[in-house]
Amino acid sequence: MTNRKEITAGIIIIGNEVLSGRTKDINTSTLAKWLNSLGIQVKEVRVIPDIETSIIETVNNLKKKFNYIFTTGGIGPTHDDITAESISKAFNLEYGFHKQAYSILEKYYKPGEFNDGRQKMAKMPTTANLILNPTSGAPGFYVENVFCLPGVPSILQSMIGGLNNKLIGGDPILSSTISLRTVESEIAKSITEIQNKYNDVEIGSYPFFKGGKLGVSIVTRSADKKKLDECYKEIIDLVKFKNIEIVEEI
Amino acid sequence: MTNRKEITAGIIIIGNEVLSGRTKDINTSTLAKWLNSLGIQVKEVRVIPDIETSIIETVNNLKKKFNYIFTTGGIGPTHDDITAESISKAFNLEYGFHKQAYSILEKYYKPGEFNDGRQKMAKMPTTANLILNPTSGAPGFYVENVFCLPGVPSILQSMIGGLNNKLIGGDPILSSTISLRTVESEIAKSITEIQNKYNDVEIGSYPFFKGGKLGVSIVTRSADKKKLDECYKEIIDLVKFKNIEIVEEI
Repeated sequence: MTNRKEITAGIIIIGNEVLSGRTKDINTSTLAKWLNSLGIQVKEVRVIPDIETSIIETVNNLKKKFNYIFTTGGIGPTHDDITAESISKAFNLEYGFHKQAYSILEKYYKPGEFNDGRQKMAKMPTTANLILNPTSGAPGFYVENVFCLPGVPSILQSMIGGLNNKLIGGDPILSSTISLRTVESEIAKSITEIQNKYNDVEIGSYPFFKGGKLGVSIVTRSADKKKLDECYKEIIDLVKFKNIEIVEEI
Repeated sequence: MTNRKEITAGIIIIGNEVLSGRTKDINTSTLAKWLNSLGIQVKEVRVIPDIETSIIETVNNLKKKFNYIFTTGGIGPTHDDITAESISKAFNLEYGFHKQAYSILEKYYKPGEFNDGRQKMAKMPTTANLILNPTSGAPGFYVENVFCLPGVPSILQSMIGGLNNKLIGGDPILSSTISLRTVESEIAKSITEIQNKYNDVEIGSYPFFKGGKLGVSIVTRSADKKKLDECYKEIIDLVKFKNIEIVEEI
Protein backbone atom coordinates (compact mmCIF):
# COMPACT_ATOMS: atom_id res chain seq x y z
CA MET A 1 0.00 0.00 0.00
CA THR A 2 1.19 3.49 -0.75
CA ASN A 3 1.20 5.73 2.26
CA ARG A 4 -2.09 7.56 1.87
CA LYS A 5 -3.93 9.43 4.56
CA GLU A 6 -7.05 7.52 5.50
CA ILE A 7 -9.78 9.40 7.36
CA THR A 8 -12.48 7.20 8.84
CA ALA A 9 -15.99 7.50 10.18
CA GLY A 10 -18.46 5.40 12.12
CA ILE A 11 -22.24 5.79 11.98
CA ILE A 12 -24.61 5.10 14.87
CA ILE A 13 -28.26 4.73 13.89
CA ILE A 14 -30.31 5.23 17.04
CA GLY A 15 -33.79 3.86 16.65
CA ASN A 16 -36.06 1.02 17.66
CA GLU A 17 -37.96 1.52 14.40
CA VAL A 18 -35.00 0.20 12.39
CA LEU A 19 -34.42 -2.72 14.78
CA SER A 20 -38.09 -3.74 14.60
CA GLY A 21 -37.92 -3.78 10.79
CA ARG A 22 -40.62 -1.14 10.48
CA THR A 23 -38.27 1.39 8.89
CA LYS A 24 -35.50 0.69 6.40
CA ASP A 25 -32.43 2.79 7.14
CA ILE A 26 -31.44 5.02 4.24
CA ASN A 27 -29.40 7.53 6.23
CA THR A 28 -26.33 5.27 6.10
CA SER A 29 -26.29 5.45 2.33
CA THR A 30 -26.78 9.25 2.33
CA LEU A 31 -24.02 9.80 4.89
CA ALA A 32 -21.60 7.31 3.30
CA LYS A 33 -21.89 8.85 -0.18
CA TRP A 34 -21.47 12.37 1.20
CA LEU A 35 -18.50 11.36 3.36
CA ASN A 36 -16.90 9.51 0.42
CA SER A 37 -17.07 12.74 -1.57
CA LEU A 38 -15.07 14.41 1.22
CA GLY A 39 -12.48 11.62 1.31
CA ILE A 40 -13.84 10.08 4.51
CA GLN A 41 -14.50 6.34 4.58
CA VAL A 42 -17.26 4.79 6.66
CA LYS A 43 -15.77 1.77 8.41
CA GLU A 44 -18.62 0.62 10.62
CA VAL A 45 -22.32 1.21 11.21
CA ARG A 46 -24.23 0.22 14.33
CA VAL A 47 -27.96 0.26 14.77
CA ILE A 48 -28.84 0.44 18.45
CA PRO A 49 -32.01 0.88 20.50
CA ASP A 50 -33.26 4.07 22.19
CA ILE A 51 -31.61 3.02 25.46
CA GLU A 52 -29.36 5.44 27.31
CA THR A 53 -26.70 2.91 28.34
CA SER A 54 -26.48 1.54 24.78
CA ILE A 55 -26.02 5.02 23.34
CA ILE A 56 -23.37 6.03 25.88
CA GLU A 57 -21.42 2.78 25.54
CA THR A 58 -21.52 2.76 21.73
CA VAL A 59 -20.52 6.43 21.40
CA ASN A 60 -17.67 6.09 23.88
CA ASN A 61 -16.44 2.95 22.16
CA LEU A 62 -16.60 4.19 18.55
CA LYS A 63 -15.38 7.76 19.05
CA LYS A 64 -11.93 6.37 19.88
CA LYS A 65 -11.91 4.01 16.88
CA PHE A 66 -12.71 6.47 14.07
CA ASN A 67 -11.93 10.08 13.16
CA TYR A 68 -15.60 11.06 13.02
CA ILE A 69 -18.82 9.64 14.42
CA PHE A 70 -22.27 10.51 13.13
CA THR A 71 -25.40 9.64 15.06
CA THR A 72 -28.87 9.77 13.53
CA GLY A 73 -32.16 9.88 15.37
CA GLY A 74 -33.44 10.68 18.83
CA ILE A 75 -33.15 14.46 18.86
CA GLY A 76 -36.84 15.30 18.47
CA PRO A 77 -39.40 16.48 21.02
CA THR A 78 -40.83 13.18 22.31
CA HIS A 79 -40.10 10.94 25.31
CA ASP A 80 -38.15 8.46 23.16
CA ASP A 81 -35.75 11.16 21.94
CA ILE A 82 -32.87 10.66 24.36
CA THR A 83 -29.80 11.16 22.18
CA ALA A 84 -28.97 14.70 23.38
CA GLU A 85 -29.12 13.75 27.06
CA SER A 86 -27.15 10.52 26.45
CA ILE A 87 -24.41 12.39 24.56
CA SER A 88 -24.16 14.87 27.45
CA LYS A 89 -23.59 11.94 29.79
CA ALA A 90 -21.13 10.22 27.44
CA PHE A 91 -18.98 13.38 27.43
CA ASN A 92 -19.71 14.28 31.06
CA LEU A 93 -21.17 17.65 30.03
CA GLU A 94 -24.06 19.65 31.45
CA TYR A 95 -27.40 18.86 29.75
CA GLY A 96 -29.71 21.86 29.54
CA PHE A 97 -30.97 24.66 27.34
CA HIS A 98 -28.43 25.63 24.69
CA LYS A 99 -28.72 29.43 24.44
CA GLN A 100 -28.24 29.71 20.68
CA ALA A 101 -30.49 26.73 19.94
CA TYR A 102 -33.20 28.16 22.21
CA SER A 103 -33.01 31.49 20.46
CA ILE A 104 -33.18 29.87 16.98
CA LEU A 105 -36.26 27.87 17.92
CA GLU A 106 -37.95 30.78 19.69
CA LYS A 107 -37.71 32.82 16.47
CA TYR A 108 -38.70 29.83 14.30
CA TYR A 109 -42.10 29.29 15.93
CA LYS A 110 -44.99 31.72 16.05
CA PRO A 111 -45.68 33.33 19.44
CA GLY A 112 -47.47 30.85 21.68
CA GLU A 113 -46.33 27.83 19.63
CA PHE A 114 -42.97 27.35 21.33
CA ASN A 115 -44.35 24.73 23.71
CA ASP A 116 -42.64 22.26 26.09
CA GLY A 117 -42.00 19.65 23.38
CA ARG A 118 -40.39 22.19 21.10
CA GLN A 119 -38.36 23.66 23.93
CA LYS A 120 -36.96 20.17 24.60
CA MET A 121 -35.27 20.35 21.18
CA ALA A 122 -33.12 23.22 22.53
CA LYS A 123 -31.81 20.93 25.29
CA MET A 124 -28.41 19.34 24.64
CA PRO A 125 -24.86 19.62 25.99
CA THR A 126 -24.90 23.35 26.79
CA THR A 127 -21.44 23.83 25.27
CA ALA A 128 -22.13 21.89 22.03
CA ASN A 129 -21.62 23.38 18.57
CA LEU A 130 -24.79 23.61 16.51
CA ILE A 131 -25.56 22.04 13.14
CA LEU A 132 -28.10 24.30 11.46
CA ASN A 133 -31.35 22.89 10.11
CA PRO A 134 -32.69 24.71 7.06
CA THR A 135 -35.76 22.44 6.84
CA SER A 136 -37.46 22.40 10.21
CA GLY A 137 -35.55 24.72 12.52
CA ALA A 138 -34.41 22.36 15.27
CA PRO A 139 -30.61 22.18 15.07
CA GLY A 140 -28.35 19.17 15.44
CA PHE A 141 -25.11 19.54 17.33
CA TYR A 142 -21.60 18.22 17.70
CA VAL A 143 -19.22 17.65 20.57
CA GLU A 144 -15.58 16.91 19.71
CA ASN A 145 -15.74 14.35 16.89
CA VAL A 146 -19.35 13.22 17.46
CA PHE A 147 -21.97 14.78 15.16
CA CYS A 148 -25.64 14.31 16.07
CA LEU A 149 -28.20 14.49 13.30
CA PRO A 150 -31.94 13.80 13.14
CA GLY A 151 -33.41 10.53 11.87
CA VAL A 152 -35.83 11.93 9.26
CA PRO A 153 -33.93 11.40 5.98
CA SER A 154 -35.01 14.58 4.18
CA ILE A 155 -34.08 16.75 7.17
CA LEU A 156 -30.74 14.99 7.67
CA GLN A 157 -30.00 15.45 3.99
CA SER A 158 -30.64 19.19 4.17
CA MET A 159 -28.27 19.59 7.15
CA ILE A 160 -25.11 17.76 6.15
CA GLY A 161 -24.00 20.24 3.50
CA GLY A 162 -23.46 22.80 6.26
CA LEU A 163 -20.78 20.54 7.75
CA ASN A 164 -18.54 20.35 4.67
CA ASN A 165 -16.05 22.89 5.96
CA LYS A 166 -16.05 21.47 9.50
CA LEU A 167 -14.66 18.10 8.42
CA ILE A 168 -11.11 17.41 7.32
CA GLY A 169 -11.12 14.75 4.62
CA GLY A 170 -8.42 12.47 3.30
CA ASP A 171 -7.59 11.55 -0.25
CA PRO A 172 -10.89 11.14 -2.09
CA ILE A 173 -11.83 7.58 -2.94
CA LEU A 174 -12.43 7.13 -6.65
CA SER A 175 -14.55 4.32 -7.97
CA SER A 176 -15.73 2.71 -11.19
CA THR A 177 -18.57 0.27 -11.62
CA ILE A 178 -19.18 -2.06 -14.51
CA SER A 179 -22.30 -4.19 -14.64
CA LEU A 180 -22.05 -7.40 -16.61
CA ARG A 181 -24.47 -9.97 -17.97
CA THR A 182 -22.77 -12.96 -16.36
CA VAL A 183 -22.69 -14.83 -13.06
CA GLU A 184 -20.02 -14.43 -10.39
CA SER A 185 -18.63 -17.93 -10.71
CA GLU A 186 -17.80 -17.36 -14.41
CA ILE A 187 -15.38 -14.57 -13.58
CA ALA A 188 -14.41 -15.29 -9.95
CA LYS A 189 -11.02 -16.84 -10.73
CA SER A 190 -9.90 -14.13 -13.17
CA ILE A 191 -11.07 -11.31 -10.89
CA THR A 192 -9.14 -12.88 -8.00
CA GLU A 193 -6.01 -12.84 -10.15
CA ILE A 194 -6.55 -9.16 -10.97
CA GLN A 195 -7.22 -8.34 -7.30
CA ASN A 196 -3.97 -10.07 -6.30
CA LYS A 197 -2.05 -7.77 -8.67
CA TYR A 198 -3.61 -4.55 -7.30
CA ASN A 199 -3.21 -4.14 -3.55
CA ASP A 200 -4.16 -0.47 -3.75
CA VAL A 201 -7.48 -1.18 -5.40
CA GLU A 202 -10.44 -2.77 -3.65
CA ILE A 203 -12.46 -4.90 -6.07
CA GLY A 204 -15.99 -5.80 -5.04
CA SER A 205 -18.23 -8.26 -6.83
CA TYR A 206 -22.00 -7.89 -6.37
CA PRO A 207 -24.53 -10.18 -8.01
CA PHE A 208 -27.85 -8.61 -8.97
CA PHE A 209 -31.19 -9.79 -10.29
CA LYS A 210 -33.01 -7.12 -12.30
CA GLY A 211 -35.78 -7.31 -14.85
CA GLY A 212 -35.70 -11.09 -14.61
CA LYS A 213 -32.04 -11.31 -15.52
CA LEU A 214 -28.97 -12.17 -13.49
CA GLY A 215 -25.89 -10.01 -13.59
CA VAL A 216 -22.81 -8.98 -11.64
CA SER A 217 -21.54 -5.49 -10.81
CA ILE A 218 -17.80 -5.19 -10.41
CA VAL A 219 -16.90 -2.15 -8.32
CA THR A 220 -13.30 -0.94 -8.14
CA ARG A 221 -12.34 1.63 -5.49
CA SER A 222 -9.04 3.35 -4.82
CA ALA A 223 -7.50 6.66 -3.82
CA ASP A 224 -4.86 6.07 -6.54
CA LYS A 225 -6.26 7.12 -9.92
CA LYS A 226 -3.43 5.56 -11.95
CA LYS A 227 -3.76 2.16 -10.28
CA LEU A 228 -7.55 2.32 -10.50
CA ASP A 229 -7.41 2.99 -14.24
CA GLU A 230 -4.89 0.19 -14.84
CA CYS A 231 -6.95 -2.27 -12.81
CA TYR A 232 -10.17 -1.26 -14.54
CA LYS A 233 -8.52 -1.72 -17.94
CA GLU A 234 -7.59 -5.29 -17.02
CA ILE A 235 -11.20 -5.96 -16.08
CA ILE A 236 -12.39 -4.56 -19.43
CA ASP A 237 -9.83 -6.75 -21.22
CA LEU A 238 -11.14 -9.78 -19.34
CA VAL A 239 -14.74 -8.91 -20.22
CA LYS A 240 -13.84 -8.58 -23.92
CA PHE A 241 -11.78 -11.78 -23.86
CA LYS A 242 -14.66 -13.73 -22.33
CA ASN A 243 -17.14 -12.03 -24.66
CA ILE A 244 -19.37 -10.90 -21.78
CA GLU A 245 -22.13 -8.37 -22.43
CA ILE A 246 -21.67 -5.03 -20.62
CA VAL A 247 -24.96 -3.80 -19.19
CA GLU A 248 -23.75 -0.49 -17.78
CA GLU A 249 -20.54 1.39 -17.02
CA ILE A 250 -20.41 4.15 -14.38
CA MET B 1 -41.85 -5.26 34.03
CA THR B 2 -43.62 -8.57 34.17
CA ASN B 3 -41.31 -11.53 34.00
CA ARG B 4 -41.50 -12.47 30.34
CA LYS B 5 -39.02 -14.53 28.42
CA GLU B 6 -37.10 -12.30 26.06
CA ILE B 7 -35.23 -13.93 23.20
CA THR B 8 -32.77 -11.67 21.41
CA ALA B 9 -30.87 -11.51 18.15
CA GLY B 10 -28.05 -9.51 16.62
CA ILE B 11 -27.51 -8.98 12.89
CA ILE B 12 -24.12 -8.58 11.22
CA ILE B 13 -24.25 -7.14 7.70
CA ILE B 14 -20.94 -8.01 6.04
CA GLY B 15 -20.31 -5.83 3.03
CA ASN B 16 -18.25 -2.92 1.78
CA GLU B 17 -21.09 -2.11 -0.63
CA VAL B 18 -23.30 -0.99 2.28
CA LEU B 19 -20.47 0.98 3.95
CA SER B 20 -19.69 2.79 0.70
CA GLY B 21 -23.33 3.83 0.35
CA ARG B 22 -23.69 2.02 -2.97
CA THR B 23 -26.26 -0.43 -1.64
CA LYS B 24 -29.03 0.27 0.86
CA ASP B 25 -29.42 -2.58 3.32
CA ILE B 26 -32.89 -4.10 3.28
CA ASN B 27 -31.97 -7.46 4.81
CA THR B 28 -32.18 -6.01 8.33
CA SER B 29 -35.83 -5.17 7.81
CA THR B 30 -36.59 -8.62 6.32
CA LEU B 31 -34.82 -10.44 9.15
CA ALA B 32 -36.26 -8.23 11.90
CA LYS B 33 -39.87 -8.68 10.75
CA TRP B 34 -39.44 -12.43 10.39
CA LEU B 35 -37.74 -12.74 13.80
CA ASN B 36 -40.44 -10.58 15.41
CA SER B 37 -43.03 -13.02 14.12
CA LEU B 38 -41.16 -15.80 15.96
CA GLY B 39 -40.94 -13.79 19.20
CA ILE B 40 -37.28 -12.89 18.74
CA GLN B 41 -36.24 -9.27 19.12
CA VAL B 42 -33.34 -7.75 17.19
CA LYS B 43 -31.30 -5.72 19.66
CA GLU B 44 -28.36 -4.59 17.56
CA VAL B 45 -27.19 -4.47 13.95
CA ARG B 46 -23.61 -3.94 12.85
CA VAL B 47 -22.46 -3.25 9.32
CA ILE B 48 -18.81 -4.21 8.93
CA PRO B 49 -16.34 -4.46 6.04
CA ASP B 50 -15.18 -7.64 4.23
CA ILE B 51 -12.16 -7.90 6.53
CA GLU B 52 -11.41 -11.18 8.29
CA THR B 53 -10.37 -9.69 11.65
CA SER B 54 -13.51 -7.49 11.73
CA ILE B 55 -15.76 -10.46 11.05
CA ILE B 56 -14.10 -12.69 13.65
CA GLU B 57 -14.07 -10.00 16.33
CA THR B 58 -17.68 -8.93 15.72
CA VAL B 59 -19.02 -12.50 15.65
CA ASN B 60 -17.15 -13.50 18.80
CA ASN B 61 -18.32 -10.38 20.58
CA LEU B 62 -22.01 -10.51 19.61
CA LYS B 63 -22.58 -14.28 19.89
CA LYS B 64 -22.18 -13.96 23.65
CA LYS B 65 -24.50 -10.95 23.90
CA PHE B 66 -27.56 -12.32 22.10
CA ASN B 67 -29.40 -15.65 21.74
CA TYR B 68 -29.04 -15.69 17.96
CA ILE B 69 -26.73 -14.03 15.47
CA PHE B 70 -27.48 -13.68 11.76
CA THR B 71 -24.82 -12.69 9.27
CA THR B 72 -25.60 -11.63 5.71
CA GLY B 73 -23.22 -11.47 2.78
CA GLY B 74 -19.85 -12.86 1.83
CA ILE B 75 -20.75 -16.49 1.09
CA GLY B 76 -20.56 -16.35 -2.72
CA PRO B 77 -17.88 -17.57 -5.13
CA THR B 78 -15.62 -14.49 -5.42
CA HIS B 79 -12.41 -13.38 -3.73
CA ASP B 80 -14.26 -10.91 -1.49
CA ASP B 81 -16.52 -13.65 -0.09
CA ILE B 82 -14.68 -14.48 3.13
CA THR B 83 -17.50 -15.05 5.62
CA ALA B 84 -17.32 -18.88 5.63
CA GLU B 85 -13.57 -18.94 6.26
CA SER B 86 -13.81 -16.20 8.90
CA ILE B 87 -16.58 -18.05 10.77
CA SER B 88 -14.44 -21.21 10.74
CA LYS B 89 -11.65 -19.23 12.37
CA ALA B 90 -14.00 -17.54 14.86
CA PHE B 91 -15.15 -20.99 16.06
CA ASN B 92 -11.75 -22.65 15.63
CA LEU B 93 -13.20 -25.18 13.19
CA GLU B 94 -11.72 -26.79 10.10
CA TYR B 95 -12.51 -24.84 6.89
CA GLY B 96 -12.94 -27.07 3.85
CA PHE B 97 -15.41 -28.81 1.59
CA HIS B 98 -18.65 -29.58 3.39
CA LYS B 99 -19.68 -33.01 2.07
CA GLN B 100 -23.42 -32.39 1.94
CA ALA B 101 -23.00 -28.87 0.49
CA TYR B 102 -20.63 -30.21 -2.17
CA SER B 103 -23.08 -32.91 -3.12
CA ILE B 104 -26.01 -30.43 -3.32
CA LEU B 105 -24.04 -28.11 -5.60
CA GLU B 106 -22.67 -30.93 -7.75
CA LYS B 107 -26.23 -32.03 -8.48
CA TYR B 108 -27.45 -28.43 -8.93
CA TYR B 109 -25.08 -27.61 -11.81
CA LYS B 110 -24.93 -29.27 -15.22
CA PRO B 111 -21.93 -31.54 -15.82
CA GLY B 112 -18.88 -29.39 -16.57
CA GLU B 113 -20.40 -26.28 -14.97
CA PHE B 114 -19.34 -27.04 -11.40
CA ASN B 115 -16.20 -24.91 -11.70
CA ASP B 116 -13.72 -23.62 -9.08
CA GLY B 117 -15.82 -20.59 -8.14
CA ARG B 118 -18.91 -22.70 -7.61
CA GLN B 119 -16.96 -25.30 -5.66
CA LYS B 120 -15.82 -22.53 -3.31
CA MET B 121 -19.44 -22.16 -2.21
CA ALA B 122 -19.22 -25.70 -0.73
CA LYS B 123 -16.35 -24.58 1.51
CA MET B 124 -17.28 -23.68 5.08
CA PRO B 125 -16.76 -25.10 8.57
CA THR B 126 -16.84 -28.80 7.66
CA THR B 127 -19.08 -29.62 10.63
CA ALA B 128 -21.59 -26.79 10.06
CA ASN B 129 -25.33 -27.35 9.67
CA LEU B 130 -26.72 -26.31 6.30
CA ILE B 131 -29.43 -23.77 5.52
CA LEU B 132 -31.03 -24.84 2.27
CA ASN B 133 -31.35 -22.42 -0.64
CA PRO B 134 -34.40 -23.03 -2.84
CA THR B 135 -33.49 -20.15 -5.18
CA SER B 136 -29.93 -20.62 -6.33
CA GLY B 137 -28.60 -23.84 -4.84
CA ALA B 138 -25.70 -22.65 -2.71
CA PRO B 139 -26.61 -23.28 0.94
CA GLY B 140 -26.01 -21.06 3.93
CA PHE B 141 -24.94 -22.64 7.20
CA TYR B 142 -25.01 -22.31 10.94
CA VAL B 143 -22.62 -23.08 13.77
CA GLU B 144 -23.98 -22.99 17.31
CA ASN B 145 -26.06 -19.78 17.47
CA VAL B 146 -24.54 -18.07 14.40
CA PHE B 147 -26.55 -18.30 11.16
CA CYS B 148 -24.86 -17.28 7.92
CA LEU B 149 -27.03 -16.13 5.03
CA PRO B 150 -26.29 -14.62 1.63
CA GLY B 151 -26.47 -10.89 0.93
CA VAL B 152 -28.77 -10.94 -2.11
CA PRO B 153 -32.16 -9.99 -0.59
CA SER B 154 -34.38 -12.24 -2.73
CA ILE B 155 -32.22 -15.30 -2.01
CA LEU B 156 -32.01 -14.52 1.72
CA GLN B 157 -35.77 -14.13 1.80
CA SER B 158 -36.32 -17.55 0.22
CA MET B 159 -34.05 -19.25 2.78
CA ILE B 160 -35.21 -17.98 6.15
CA GLY B 161 -38.52 -19.85 6.19
CA GLY B 162 -36.55 -23.11 6.39
CA LEU B 163 -35.17 -22.00 9.76
CA ASN B 164 -38.51 -21.49 11.52
CA ASN B 165 -38.35 -24.79 13.39
CA LYS B 166 -34.65 -24.40 14.26
CA LEU B 167 -35.20 -21.25 16.34
CA ILE B 168 -36.79 -21.12 19.76
CA GLY B 169 -38.76 -17.90 20.09
CA GLY B 170 -40.03 -16.04 23.13
CA ASP B 171 -43.38 -14.39 23.66
CA PRO B 172 -44.36 -12.80 20.36
CA ILE B 173 -44.18 -9.03 20.28
CA LEU B 174 -47.48 -7.47 19.32
CA SER B 175 -47.69 -4.00 17.87
CA SER B 176 -50.15 -1.35 16.75
CA THR B 177 -49.42 1.68 14.65
CA ILE B 178 -51.54 4.78 14.30
CA SER B 179 -50.54 7.50 11.87
CA LEU B 180 -51.74 10.99 12.69
CA ARG B 181 -52.00 14.30 10.89
CA THR B 182 -50.12 16.29 13.53
CA VAL B 183 -46.58 17.14 14.58
CA GLU B 184 -44.67 15.45 17.37
CA SER B 185 -44.48 18.49 19.62
CA GLU B 186 -48.30 18.76 19.74
CA ILE B 187 -48.63 15.39 21.43
CA ALA B 188 -45.20 14.87 23.03
CA LYS B 189 -46.26 15.77 26.57
CA SER B 190 -49.43 13.63 26.58
CA ILE B 191 -47.66 10.64 25.03
CA THR B 192 -44.93 10.90 27.66
CA GLU B 193 -47.61 10.75 30.37
CA ILE B 194 -49.11 7.63 28.75
CA GLN B 195 -45.65 6.01 28.37
CA ASN B 196 -44.96 6.64 32.07
CA LYS B 197 -48.12 4.69 32.98
CA TYR B 198 -47.22 1.65 30.82
CA ASN B 199 -43.81 0.16 31.58
CA ASP B 200 -44.65 -3.01 29.65
CA VAL B 201 -45.41 -1.13 26.45
CA GLU B 202 -42.78 0.56 24.32
CA ILE B 203 -44.21 3.65 22.63
CA GLY B 204 -42.30 5.01 19.64
CA SER B 205 -43.02 8.30 17.92
CA TYR B 206 -41.90 8.69 14.29
CA PRO B 207 -42.45 11.84 12.27
CA PHE B 208 -43.04 11.38 8.55
CA PHE B 209 -43.34 13.59 5.50
CA LYS B 210 -45.49 12.04 2.78
CA GLY B 211 -47.29 13.54 -0.19
CA GLY B 212 -46.23 16.99 0.95
CA LYS B 213 -47.80 16.64 4.38
CA LEU B 214 -46.30 16.18 7.83
CA GLY B 215 -47.49 13.48 10.16
CA VAL B 216 -46.50 11.29 13.09
CA SER B 217 -46.75 7.53 13.47
CA ILE B 218 -47.20 6.30 17.02
CA VAL B 219 -46.08 2.69 17.35
CA THR B 220 -46.91 0.69 20.48
CA ARG B 221 -45.15 -2.64 21.05
CA SER B 222 -45.55 -5.19 23.83
CA ALA B 223 -45.66 -8.90 24.56
CA ASP B 224 -48.65 -8.22 26.86
CA LYS B 225 -51.83 -7.97 24.79
CA LYS B 226 -53.97 -6.59 27.62
CA LYS B 227 -51.55 -3.79 28.45
CA LEU B 228 -51.03 -3.03 24.76
CA ASP B 229 -54.79 -2.68 24.21
CA GLU B 230 -55.21 -0.46 27.29
CA CYS B 231 -52.33 1.74 26.25
CA TYR B 232 -53.56 2.00 22.66
CA LYS B 233 -57.02 2.98 23.91
CA GLU B 234 -55.53 5.86 25.88
CA ILE B 235 -53.75 7.05 22.75
CA ILE B 236 -57.02 6.91 20.78
CA ASP B 237 -58.76 8.86 23.55
CA LEU B 238 -56.02 11.49 23.36
CA VAL B 239 -56.34 11.72 19.59
CA LYS B 240 -60.11 12.21 19.85
CA PHE B 241 -59.76 14.73 22.66
CA LYS B 242 -57.28 16.78 20.65
CA ASN B 243 -59.39 16.38 17.51
CA ILE B 244 -56.44 15.05 15.48
CA GLU B 245 -57.07 13.47 12.09
CA ILE B 246 -56.20 9.75 11.87
CA VAL B 247 -54.42 8.96 8.59
CA GLU B 248 -54.07 5.20 9.06
CA GLU B 249 -54.41 2.49 11.70
CA ILE B 250 -52.52 -0.82 11.44
